[in-house]
Amino acid sequence: MKINSLDQLLVHELEDLLSAEQQLVEALPKMADAASDNSLKTAFKDHLKQTKTHVTRLEKAFKELGQEPKAVTCKGMQGLIKEGEEMIKNAAPGDVLDAGLIGAAQRVEHYEMAAYGTARAFARALGHDKLIDLLQTTLDEEGGTNKHLTQLAEGRLTYTGINEKALA
Amino acid sequence: MKINSLDQLLVHELEDLLSAEQQLVEALPKMADAASDNSLKTAFKDHLKQTKTHVTRLEKAFKELGQEPKAVTCKGMQGLIKEGEEMIKNAAPGDVLDAGLIGAAQRVEHYEMAAYGTARAFARALGHDKLIDLLQTTLDEEGGTNKHLTQLAEGRLTYTGINEKALA
Repeated sequence: MKINSLDQLLVHELEDLLSAEQQLVEALPKMADAASDNSLKTAFKDHLKQTKTHVTRLEKAFKELGQEPKAVTCKGMQGLIKEGEEMIKNAAPGDVLDAGLIGAAQRVEHYEMAAYGTARAFARALGHDKLIDLLQTTLDEEGGTNKHLTQLAEGRLTYTGINEKALA
Repeated sequence: MKINSLDQLLVHELEDLLSAEQQLVEALPKMADAASDNSLKTAFKDHLKQTKTHVTRLEKAFKELGQEPKAVTCKGMQGLIKEGEEMIKNAAPGDVLDAGLIGAAQRVEHYEMAAYGTARAFARALGHDKLIDLLQTTLDEEGGTNKHLTQLAEGRLTYTGINEKALA
């Protein structure tokens, strides 16, 4: 594969993102199972539903460009998911693992924010208006999930934050 | 390795970050070499200097906790760096590769923002005031580098943005 133009680079970004989202569809149920806090379990389950719509939205983005959807293994997401799996293996189940899982999940959300932000910038430079909207919608949802995870960690949504409970 | 407390989880985060920064010290010179745009080359070189100070600051953070600095392979950063290497191999040198390199570098910065943010939240919950300051200083610098990369891509600093040049 050779990337010779910004159009091809945009398609490459979408291929990377499709792989990232597909990997996440597999990983999120394991994170939900590993979580103890009910709000955190729910957050992972809700984000799984959202992630499935992100896959569909990416498939639409490919179609907008007249391309068949294709995934090219996202090595970045592979590494991030491995980190989450190690956390599940190594941290004591309960509040400590929950705090670690939030850290792993926020790395994932930040990856996606960077990648969707890059793809949106390319779509903007190329004048693909419909694509910009599709990418922006997902970007907003990833940002929202990241904020929600911070709130769970810091206890703005629960009576006691997960980080503070992990002190006990 | 078993992580049984928030203290141990914080140490684990620092070990992960130390590995991430050390990997980045190796990767940034290759990214600077691969870049064509002078401002982008300079950005990577400047960030290399900064990254070396981040390593020193992390070593200080370990000492604050009465621990010897130790790195535990950061799989997330390994994946992100692999993505950057693939970009160098696959994208046409010049504006297209430059745009792709910025995308790869912003994934790295976002990883670090998520990881330092998590470590800072743990340090806050544990009341390690000096550690919070150390982590916050680096976090601000990672955020600054990320913004600078966006400006380079979108052309706020150069007459024509790298993304627009990649159109030609």
